Amino acid sequence: MLPEQGHLLRIFIGESDKHEGKPLYEWIVKKAKESGLAGSTVLRGIEGFGAKSRIHSAKILDLSTDLPIIIEIVDELEKIENFLPIIDEAIPEGLATVEKVHVRFYRSKQK
Amino acid sequence: MLPEQGHLLRIFIGESDKHEGKPLYEWIVKKAKESGLAGSTVLRGIEGFGAKSRIHSAKILDLSTDLPIIIEIVDELEKIENFLPIIDEAIPEGLATVEKVHVRFYRSKQK
Amino acid sequence: MLPEQGHLLRIFIGESDKHEGKPLYEWIVKKAKESGLAGSTVLRGIEGFGAKSRIHSAKILDLSTDLPIIIEIVDELEKIENFLPIIDEAIPEGLATVEKVHVRFYRSKQK
Repeated sequence: MLPEQGHLLRIFIGESDKHEGKPLYEWIVKKAKESGLAGSTVLRGIEGFGAKSRIHSAKILDLSTDLPIIIEIVDELEKIENFLPIIDEAIPEGLATVEKVHVRFYRSKQK
Repeated sequence: MLPEQGHLLRIFIGESDKHEGKPLYEWIVKKAKESGLAGSTVLRGIEGFGAKSRIHSAKILDLSTDLPIIIEIVDELEKIENFLPIIDEAIPEGLATVEKVHVRFYRSKQK
Repeated sequence: MLPEQGHLLRIFIGESDKHEGKPLYEWIVKKAKESGLAGSTVLRGIEGFGAKSRIHSAKILDLSTDLPIIIEIVDELEKIENFLPIIDEAIPEGLATVEKVHVRFYRSKQK
């Protein structure tokens, strides 16, 4: 269950970032699941720039291309606050934002 | 026209969810258009987990892969409130959030 | 550096929109970088409709397909307010929203 007053955590990193030998975004999703968060979604951008400052684009055939990744997690604030320190040290470069959202429904079929 | 104080509805479902014989996200976009909402955008994630709990990834060559979908709709709160009951029963699993946004411009070329 | 109280600017346009001979989203990202904004991310939707009203879908093999694009920029409000007039005239059709976000971290490796 999620309370009506939820929070959205968004983490902006690069697709080529790694942690413990795997893509950082996969590692964060795994940690989110282990931490019992309600869900997570990984979006890949087609272009962008951030802390590293160079513009990366999916259109340039460049093996060094590092496309932007956004990981989105919706849960109650306390769970998000507990989660941030778990992933903090794994993210040398990036941005994390938190904003309030109203949860209108959260439902799952029980199996 | 959109008022300056708008709301953003975000619906998190799975790509393989169906309704009335078509992908659920296509059905929701169709209903949003029929309902006169100002616009909608469908984003497909490359990985994620949610109500169904398994982690899905675009990297695994698995026909059962069910990638996360986010549908975003910006409009005034009243229109979003009227729209939610229309789609509610079609979504057995998923998450919907609403948040306030300031609309800075909304413009279209008249044809 | 970003202040703890940041703002998220989201610009909804079409992939086929052009400005000064290049895709409008590339032009906006270039202007964002020139303006010293902290970062930007371009997301491409797989379906949507907006000001132009037709539903566009990545599934239809149609050369005229104009998929939805969302450009996201996180920075302090003043920088976003200064940036909007720079891009305003280049966007004949589209939507721009601004919302408050809490910046939890923004970090870069110095090179």
